[in-house]
Amino acid sequence: MNGSESDNNEKQIIFNISKEENFPDWYTEICRVAELVDIRYGVKGFTPFLPWSFMSMDIMFDIYERTLKGKKHLPMLFPTVIPEGNLTKEADHVEGFTPQVFWIKDIGEGKELEEPLALRPTSETAIYPLYSLWVRSWRDLPMKRYQKCSVFRSEVKSTRPFLRGREFLWIESHNVFATHEEGKAQVMEDLETTQEVVTGEYGIPVMIFRRTQWDKFPGGVDTYAADTLMPDGKVIQLPSTHDLGDNFARAFDITYLDESNEDVYAFQTCYGPAVSRIYGAMISIHGDDKGLRLPFKIAPYQVVIIPIFTEKTEKKVMDYCHGIESRLTKTAIRVHLDDCDQTPGWKYNYWEMKGVPVRVEAGPRDIKGEKAVVFRRDTMKRESVSVDELSDRVKELGKAIDDNLRKIAESKFEDLVVDAETIGQVDEALNRGKIARIEFCTTQMAGFACAEHIKDQTGGEIRGTRIDIEEEPTSVCLVCGKPAEEIVYIARSY
Amino acid sequence: MNGSESDNNEKQIIFNISKEENFPDWYTEICRVAELVDIRYGVKGFTPFLPWSFMSMDIMFDIYERTLKGKKHLPMLFPTVIPEGNLTKEADHVEGFTPQVFWIKDIGEGKELEEPLALRPTSETAIYPLYSLWVRSWRDLPMKRYQKCSVFRSEVKSTRPFLRGREFLWIESHNVFATHEEGKAQVMEDLETTQEVVTGEYGIPVMIFRRTQWDKFPGGVDTYAADTLMPDGKVIQLPSTHDLGDNFARAFDITYLDESNEDVYAFQTCYGPAVSRIYGAMISIHGDDKGLRLPFKIAPYQVVIIPIFTEKTEKKVMDYCHGIESRLTKTAIRVHLDDCDQTPGWKYNYWEMKGVPVRVEAGPRDIKGEKAVVFRRDTMKRESVSVDELSDRVKELGKAIDDNLRKIAESKFEDLVVDAETIGQVDEALNRGKIARIEFCTTQMAGFACAEHIKDQTGGEIRGTRIDIEEEPTSVCLVCGKPAEEIVYIARSY
Repeated sequence: MNGSESDNNEKQIIFNISKEENFPDWYTEICRVAELVDIRYGVKGFTPFLPWSFMSMDIMFDIYERTLKGKKHLPMLFPTVIPEGNLTKEADHVEGFTPQVFWIKDIGEGKELEEPLALRPTSETAIYPLYSLWVRSWRDLPMKRYQKCSVFRSEVKSTRPFLRGREFLWIESHNVFATHEEGKAQVMEDLETTQEVVTGEYGIPVMIFRRTQWDKFPGGVDTYAADTLMPDGKVIQLPSTHDLGDNFARAFDITYLDESNEDVYAFQTCYGPAVSRIYGAMISIHGDDKGLRLPFKIAPYQVVIIPIFTEKTEKKVMDYCHGIESRLTKTAIRVHLDDCDQTPGWKYNYWEMKGVPVRVEAGPRDIKGEKAVVFRRDTMKRESVSVDELSDRVKELGKAIDDNLRKIAESKFEDLVVDAETIGQVDEALNRGKIARIEFCTTQMAGFACAEHIKDQTGGEIRGTRIDIEEEPTSVCLVCGKPAEEIVYIARSY
Repeated sequence: MNGSESDNNEKQIIFNISKEENFPDWYTEICRVAELVDIRYGVKGFTPFLPWSFMSMDIMFDIYERTLKGKKHLPMLFPTVIPEGNLTKEADHVEGFTPQVFWIKDIGEGKELEEPLALRPTSETAIYPLYSLWVRSWRDLPMKRYQKCSVFRSEVKSTRPFLRGREFLWIESHNVFATHEEGKAQVMEDLETTQEVVTGEYGIPVMIFRRTQWDKFPGGVDTYAADTLMPDGKVIQLPSTHDLGDNFARAFDITYLDESNEDVYAFQTCYGPAVSRIYGAMISIHGDDKGLRLPFKIAPYQVVIIPIFTEKTEKKVMDYCHGIESRLTKTAIRVHLDDCDQTPGWKYNYWEMKGVPVRVEAGPRDIKGEKAVVFRRDTMKRESVSVDELSDRVKELGKAIDDNLRKIAESKFEDLVVDAETIGQVDEALNRGKIARIEFCTTQMAGFACAEHIKDQTGGEIRGTRIDIEEEPTSVCLVCGKPAEEIVYIARSY
């Protein structure tokens, strides 16, 4: 190992694709070269998650779980399979999910099961029969539980690593309350959690909508969801939270004895952050033309150390770098010392493409001054830092990097919403990668035909009404001309 | 809330079953009353894991993963489903696992899949086709990866929560090496990991065996496994590690270019700690007649704080207890302040049954002396500790509790092994809850008939040969009378 080119060295990976101009290629290529997934598994929509993506998703899950636990949700885990009889108990729910279900009907060499089992597409129908047994009196409420698991949906839309798979990784939180008001308050808490985690920790800005009645969770009363913007100008749904009212309580007989000893139905909510999908959005939003730019909080390695040496200085430089490694490790920074048999230049390119937020370079000259060169991936800027101050400086830079990435993402939301008064204006706004804001008859089922018309004409979907700001319609629905009851947002979407 | 019995209070849970005399009942009952699982899910062998067991398993997984990462294994995650074609590539492997496979053959309302998918019973056949693509040259080796996941086996033996389920939780580590020697060294490293984690961290003593050829992993060369002893005198297999030789490399075409540029087969190992099963063994081994005794390292709550007050002193005591809570939390102790509407006595019983290792009690008298009463679940002993010293003392006690539980478990291994020279002596030893040590013809396939004879006559199974001590046979096989090639151990088992 000597830091110079040798015959053994593998080809340089120099990633360079314009993310804004050619996002589909950018995405496909970065998933491959950064070793995030391998699409050669051989089953449509199922992709192995490789260490570089999995380690980040693991950290993202940890952050989510810590936040949920802090809000008094307890973890548990239900089976992966759901008996067919459970799945069919709530009529709208079965209609919404059954077409996508993977069925297990036999075992081994042709032994038939008594009752077919579904791979869970979501776990309401697995969990709620037991909630019916667990919830007995007002003392048992609220019951706030969640699980982290894989779910399975035979998507008809075309699949894409992380963004839409037939197996994806999520947290599903299922909560039971004495009153509908408490359920609605939980929905608001979930939306705050989305903002705290998805925006605050992962740096992904979102807009929050109440979905239309034709776009809500099957079987629920109301669905609220966070949308973010992808580099191709389409929006993608991130976590959604559902006010289930007492619909599922009635279907699954979840009742409790209230304080006056009467048996009444409970109210429920559920919340489902799909971390694998959020990861896909996260890399898309923060990446640049040179590859990934991972937030410091989420990077598997927050710092990569690259030793720079000749044959003569190798031992001294490696010792120095090991010293830096152990200093940083001691202050709980995730560090990787790259001692593989490649040139420093090769390593620079490789880890820039992989999105490691901070690089530390050290060679003989740095040793002399007890310093190291520190490089920020987000701005591609270098500085020299004394080894004594290295940990503190890296942590400062970590914060600065995360702030910067979030601000860059947020800047894409500026001037994003455009008011439109005609279908033509909607279409024109969407063509410019904007979100159209319109006056609309109603997000109740009666408005479905108008929404379909807009979709036919523009390819845009109604994302719903804003709940974070008050908006009063003053005019008429741009499709049917009836008095507008709501202001809604239209975007092309994943 | 006033600390005295009230009409609202639920019935006291006083657990009291002799674990040694009536282990099956003890186990079934503790799983129910300590809220570890709910067996009413309605699908044979599939049980939801409730928060109290799941939180401990989560910690147990964390410890395992930290250890594996420290030994340079990287996490990843493969799909839950495996195409039928992969599963059938290694002949012995398919014979071993296919009878237990759950099959997915259709989607939604009767749409047939092109190729049936198996729910993974283990992931060699999912992972190795991609290892065949990833491993190219000696530079890619060793490749050490693992995943944490559920696996699915339609067990024919009767199922039992944690100990034998049709869906269980494990880590599977899959490793590729240039040489068979490196593979064998990995197997030894895995066995060390078992001892470090299972004994060192969870407090479960084990004996390590090389299994017989008829009891090895289907498709492998040799299997090594750790056995521990359950309270009913039967042994149970904990993590096993497999030397796969180049058998799977040949079946899945995993080759690499060696340093002289020749394409040669790689060697592989895999290792599978089933954390849900280890949890079942752990609670069985450490529990006592009053319920669970969780190791301090593994308990979801390491400390439960019980406030003791009258109406007059409630506020003062609660403030004091919150102060204790935040002191302990600050020093990274997992604390639960039980402020529910039950008497202190009820809470004592409840948390003793749940196995919380340390209880802190505080009332007006303790406030006066700036003290609290500290109670150890393992020895049921109390002491008074000044609040300033509480964190340090709790951590000391935590270590002492874990040591004590491990020592109690280890004491069951004393005088456990009994030499036997006839089938009658084997039977007699097993009836006394012992493990019989015998001279035996051979653990190669030629010894299978002798092993079957022993099993028929005594119900005992050959667990294999010890690899942690050297043992030389000097006599003959007690069944066939041929010269003994090995010394083996016989036990009744799960």
